[in-house]
Amino acid sequence: MEQRFSSALLENAVTELSRLPGIGRKTALRLALHLLRREPREAAALGRAIIDMREGIRYCRVCHNISQDEICPICSSMSRDSRTVCVVENVKDVMSIENTGEYHGVYHVLGGLISPIDGIGPDALEIASLVERVTDGGVDEVILALSATMEGDTTNFYIYRRLSQCGDVRVTQLARGVSVGNEIEYTDEITLGRSLLNRTPFSDSFAN
Amino acid sequence: MEQRFSSALLENAVTELSRLPGIGRKTALRLALHLLRREPREAAALGRAIIDMREGIRYCRVCHNISQDEICPICSSMSRDSRTVCVVENVKDVMSIENTGEYHGVYHVLGGLISPIDGIGPDALEIASLVERVTDGGVDEVILALSATMEGDTTNFYIYRRLSQCGDVRVTQLARGVSVGNEIEYTDEITLGRSLLNRTPFSDSFAN
Repeated sequence: MEQRFSSALLENAVTELSRLPGIGRKTALRLALHLLRREPREAAALGRAIIDMREGIRYCRVCHNISQDEICPICSSMSRDSRTVCVVENVKDVMSIENTGEYHGVYHVLGGLISPIDGIGPDALEIASLVERVTDGGVDEVILALSATMEGDTTNFYIYRRLSQCGDVRVTQLARGVSVGNEIEYTDEITLGRSLLNRTPFSDSFAN
Repeated sequence: MEQRFSSALLENAVTELSRLPGIGRKTALRLALHLLRREPREAAALGRAIIDMREGIRYCRVCHNISQDEICPICSSMSRDSRTVCVVENVKDVMSIENTGEYHGVYHVLGGLISPIDGIGPDALEIASLVERVTDGGVDEVILALSATMEGDTTNFYIYRRLSQCGDVRVTQLARGVSVGNEIEYTDEITLGRSLLNRTPFSDSFAN
């Protein structure tokens, strides 16, 4: 049964909160009542932060990462290597790679992966703009950093095929193998099999 | 490791969202990115709903339920029986009882239960104002509708003792027994024992 509320303002806040993913009406009510118990400026700060974020953030015209300007700080940075483009699924993956501190190139955010079962074809993603970036020149290497899933592999292969028609660009993908810290006993057979096939010289592991 | 964000606006929204109970920084980031993918007016509606709710809602001067006016709609309603006061722990309990459609009296929201272990004494709750309401007269019955827990029982007993010094008011509590739909086999022994002791005439069950 739909719960009745004693206040239209509360009802409205609960309705809006429950539109968020993973938040049902019960949780939304709990959050709203929590905000009512706190200082008014705390609720105001939350409300303003949401509004300001949505109004102030757009997508970078070059790499489609989130940005407060037309071109994001990574694309416009002089210290980044714009000849290396790392292709990722979404904005979160950019953050994950940035947090490694190991990457100094630029990005291209696809906005998803090819998934026929979900009705997501190549045209729904930022693949045409990637091909255009490469065709325009100035890109030496495209690193495919997509998930090691069926959808990731499909998208990898599709992009590889498209880019191989664009002339002289090196297409690489993330190394796949046993994750650091994982025990052999609990590593799945496919990963283990591939890791054996793609074994690397032991001396490489202390080379860098 | 603290995740770095590509935008101060996003960082701020994630920080504010993660102040909500049960929402960590990972979930907050997921919610923020969800809002970024939706229409700007959807985020604006959520932000405004939160601000408006906190600014517009206060607590009823009489019963301490949430209200948009100084006196809540239940307390100021002419169709409610103001001589019967139902004592509840919090605002949610008012909603639960209102949703039964079985209650036509008014409320008194304590704002918690006595819990020495959490350092919550009677003075932290709206007990003095309840005693005052009863002392002022005009109340025939006080219904204790608190949880059937140790804290609820303690609070029930404390309020009962205080009210018994206030002259002629009937103090009742919610019936306790086997919940509707529960099987005897899975009912706990204390509930079952009490239900036996407090058994009611069978004819009562179809009297109303």
